[in-house]
Amino acid sequence: MTNAGTSTSTPFTQRLRQAQRASDSALCVGLDIDPSRMPVGIAPRRQGLVRFLRGIIESTADLVCAYKPNLAFFEALGAEGWSILHEVLLSIPDGLITIADGKRGDIGSTAERYAAAVFQELNFDAITVNPYQGADSIEPYLADQTRGAFILCKTSNPGSMDFQELLCRFADTEAPLFEIVARKAVALDVLGNVGLVVGATYPEQLARVRALAPHQPILIPGVGTQGGDAAESIRKGAASDGTLAIVNVSRQVLYASSDSNWETIARSEARGLRDLMRNDQAECFEGKSAG
Amino acid sequence: MTNAGTSTSTPFTQRLRQAQRASDSALCVGLDIDPSRMPVGIAPRRQGLVRFLRGIIESTADLVCAYKPNLAFFEALGAEGWSILHEVLLSIPDGLITIADGKRGDIGSTAERYAAAVFQELNFDAITVNPYQGADSIEPYLADQTRGAFILCKTSNPGSMDFQELLCRFADTEAPLFEIVARKAVALDVLGNVGLVVGATYPEQLARVRALAPHQPILIPGVGTQGGDAAESIRKGAASDGTLAIVNVSRQVLYASSDSNWETIARSEARGLRDLMRNDQAECFEGKSAG
Repeated sequence: MTNAGTSTSTPFTQRLRQAQRASDSALCVGLDIDPSRMPVGIAPRRQGLVRFLRGIIESTADLVCAYKPNLAFFEALGAEGWSILHEVLLSIPDGLITIADGKRGDIGSTAERYAAAVFQELNFDAITVNPYQGADSIEPYLADQTRGAFILCKTSNPGSMDFQELLCRFADTEAPLFEIVARKAVALDVLGNVGLVVGATYPEQLARVRALAPHQPILIPGVGTQGGDAAESIRKGAASDGTLAIVNVSRQVLYASSDSNWETIARSEARGLRDLMRNDQAECFEGKSAG
Repeated sequence: MTNAGTSTSTPFTQRLRQAQRASDSALCVGLDIDPSRMPVGIAPRRQGLVRFLRGIIESTADLVCAYKPNLAFFEALGAEGWSILHEVLLSIPDGLITIADGKRGDIGSTAERYAAAVFQELNFDAITVNPYQGADSIEPYLADQTRGAFILCKTSNPGSMDFQELLCRFADTEAPLFEIVARKAVALDVLGNVGLVVGATYPEQLARVRALAPHQPILIPGVGTQGGDAAESIRKGAASDGTLAIVNVSRQVLYASSDSNWETIARSEARGLRDLMRNDQAECFEGKSAG
């Protein structure tokens, strides 16, 4: 999606900041399509699924800065999944950011191949990537400064305690693995297109990552069904100018109602979340100015 | 792929052992389809790509224990990729193991969705998964004991030094992250269907992982183009009975020749690798018996 007011070479982080200012929103809606949860009147087949996601987009496009389709949900639809995704992406207005949530991690040639699929074939603005395989598995996603990569750092699930919190030797000190990932991400951010993923369910770790990465976007999943708090995510996750925290909500918006009024209710949920974060952001910003 | 001589409830690791004994081979051919590298006479379009991979399978099926399609290469083909993969999979003979190389890592509900796509929709026997998000991102792939998950442990690329080798505090001691991943994998292996991925480019680490995980399959990429040694991989990676090391080779077999004799040359490459590992395995086994 190209932003009408953006140069074709504007770095991803700057494009995101513009999208957040234009929309006055930190909200990202996660497009996690689940055929078993379609509302009344929507058939869980190709045209129904497209109709549903387009309805969600039309009802929320003026309330969000970004959409994040989770690729696993589309892949689960089989051969049709990719073309459903393609069709849905075409209905997202210019100026909004699109994030392919694939959590990829693979080495050079494979990563290049995957970057081509996501950035060229599907024209996504950004992708989520897994850091386990190291810098050379991330760099292929950073070659085009206008496209971004969000590196998994501290994820929202309980299993994020298993490895991400292990204390590791680093330089002359010791730090949990997720902090070392955050430092490495900042070091990789030469072109202004590296972000991080930190779950809303771990607000202290979110504050710590923001401190380590003051100028990078942070994608924050885990609000809603998983128990994270949207307003606290903005307080802990926003950069000093109030932008660069992207709070993702999926099921709470998509499946807010299974009745025929699903579009109205989805819009109302999204508006409530946007306003909650906007108010909190204003307070937070005033507080910082006063202090 | 169901194995004719296997009960429908045989655990994945046992099925793999049977496939390796029946084929007398530790070789896995990686189906990394690349339209830009098709041999003469093969058009880089749907039917050509299917024809090429079916040709590779027909030429090598009696020389291998497994095939491993790298999903990123199929996704890069766009909407057609998934159905090309589906068509190719149908030509793999029963009794051989199929591994979906997707290196996935996602939390519960998404992982479940992805497991459904790979195990039910495409009927793969196993998948590669990324451990960064912890146990709850791996467990959904382990629910069916007949299907396996290979957990990335020490990968073949240079970037595997960045995080996988970090010294972490663990219990009362210190160990590199990849060793902690290996220990966790063994702990998760309740049903006999957990494997590990260790690159042939790091033979010492491969020996260390085999010592930590004596009964688990190890998938070994990085032989050939990346510089790993097939025979050494078997010496360091096989279990005490000589099985459970799976050595993957992709480009060295697939793109061995771009002339019209590509099938013959691919077969010859595969046979050479299979024999090299078989001879080495025999020597290694004799050595162990004598010692």
